[in-house]
Amino acid sequence: MTKEEALFTYLLRRADDTLILGHRLSEWCGHGPILEEDIALTNLSLDLIGQCTSYFQYAAQIEGKGRTEDDLAFLRIEKDYVNCLMVEQPNGDFGKTITRQFFYDVYHKLLLEALVNSKDEQLSAIAEKSLKEVKYHLRHSSEWMIRLGDGTEESHERMQNAVDDISRFIDELFYKDQVDEMLIKEGIIPDSADFRAAYDAYVTEVLEEATLQLPEKMWQLSGGRKGVHSEHLGYLLAELQYMQRTYPNMEW
Amino acid sequence: MTKEEALFTYLLRRADDTLILGHRLSEWCGHGPILEEDIALTNLSLDLIGQCTSYFQYAAQIEGKGRTEDDLAFLRIEKDYVNCLMVEQPNGDFGKTITRQFFYDVYHKLLLEALVNSKDEQLSAIAEKSLKEVKYHLRHSSEWMIRLGDGTEESHERMQNAVDDISRFIDELFYKDQVDEMLIKEGIIPDSADFRAAYDAYVTEVLEEATLQLPEKMWQLSGGRKGVHSEHLGYLLAELQYMQRTYPNMEW
Repeated sequence: MTKEEALFTYLLRRADDTLILGHRLSEWCGHGPILEEDIALTNLSLDLIGQCTSYFQYAAQIEGKGRTEDDLAFLRIEKDYVNCLMVEQPNGDFGKTITRQFFYDVYHKLLLEALVNSKDEQLSAIAEKSLKEVKYHLRHSSEWMIRLGDGTEESHERMQNAVDDISRFIDELFYKDQVDEMLIKEGIIPDSADFRAAYDAYVTEVLEEATLQLPEKMWQLSGGRKGVHSEHLGYLLAELQYMQRTYPNMEW
Repeated sequence: MTKEEALFTYLLRRADDTLILGHRLSEWCGHGPILEEDIALTNLSLDLIGQCTSYFQYAAQIEGKGRTEDDLAFLRIEKDYVNCLMVEQPNGDFGKTITRQFFYDVYHKLLLEALVNSKDEQLSAIAEKSLKEVKYHLRHSSEWMIRLGDGTEESHERMQNAVDDISRFIDELFYKDQVDEMLIKEGIIPDSADFRAAYDAYVTEVLEEATLQLPEKMWQLSGGRKGVHSEHLGYLLAELQYMQRTYPNMEW
């Protein structure tokens, strides 16, 4: 594996995380519980889709085989998507969507803060631009965790169920393989182990204020970074890819 | 419009009804409330998919442009599907699926009983083969209407909600336009108006025994026969067409 191949895979992982989470959030458009949140979720979605575009463009450039960012986003098959499993989980109710967002946002912010120092200037620039948006995402999801967790009996119960469900996907965020090892050594990406303690500390702080509890260590699910996905991704991709599959080579 | 063009459109309407309803039922596979019903719904689905294959094959033959039954089933765009709106409605709970099935089965059986007398031998043969299956479908859905409608308070309430919902799509089953008029005149298809009274009588009889009520005449929705669909069809097609769109010209 060359450094370029490793960087290509790493960029796809970033791109797929933001594409798939952005797509999930877009499903809320017009269905939010209140108008303000409908708009907020749609804005988060747009931020993430914008970020994925930057990653896909850079990945296409690194690959140098003539594939465009649209080819990468829309024309791969399921097992070639390398997003983590957390982001492909279904929206559920608003509480579950917020919980998924929260657990990802904490990771996302810590990752970007470290990625800003990448020796790869283009990756550093994408991280810097994204970080401004993701800081806001995390503030938004943290506030809702507290408001709903420490809310009514029903909202508390729903949030605790969501925490129990989504926390099974936390360890995968810190997954590392040869791709990461090579790029860490080159100073291109941070070692996610370096901010695991910060992740756990922040999560614990917010959950405590929200009167929610992380469950006893659950069986942790993984496989997404290698293209082994939960049953939900195929359905999501069928919808996501419909236009490009139906009208090949279409452009806006 | 020639007689062949009218017959082609009519066959597509039959094919699309059975394809889309069959696909909806297939979504239950592995999710039925009890094993017996899981298998029953999957068998209904297979019956309907089998019937749609016959209609699509005949339609492709009539069209004579080299399109196969798979092209017709998988490679049209949403507005070219001419199924009625009832069959594309989401499954909801088991009661809603049964209610959708019941309202369609009554129509389907009466239609096929009359279509057996078609002057078009091939259409008559398809109807005869299908009728054997659909008689069973109707018995199955009628029994569940009664069991659940006249069951517990909760099952009754769910069934009444489903009846209120699905009954908005009944009139469209009896939709007629130039296509029908031409084929009725030729003795190729029956006039559905001739069995509307039988439809209403059978529905009333079963609903009474089920202690359910048809709501006051609801606003009736239509458009499916002209390709104007509810929001649900696009998502269904994205899933239905995924394999053929992703691997063009694939064969089993």
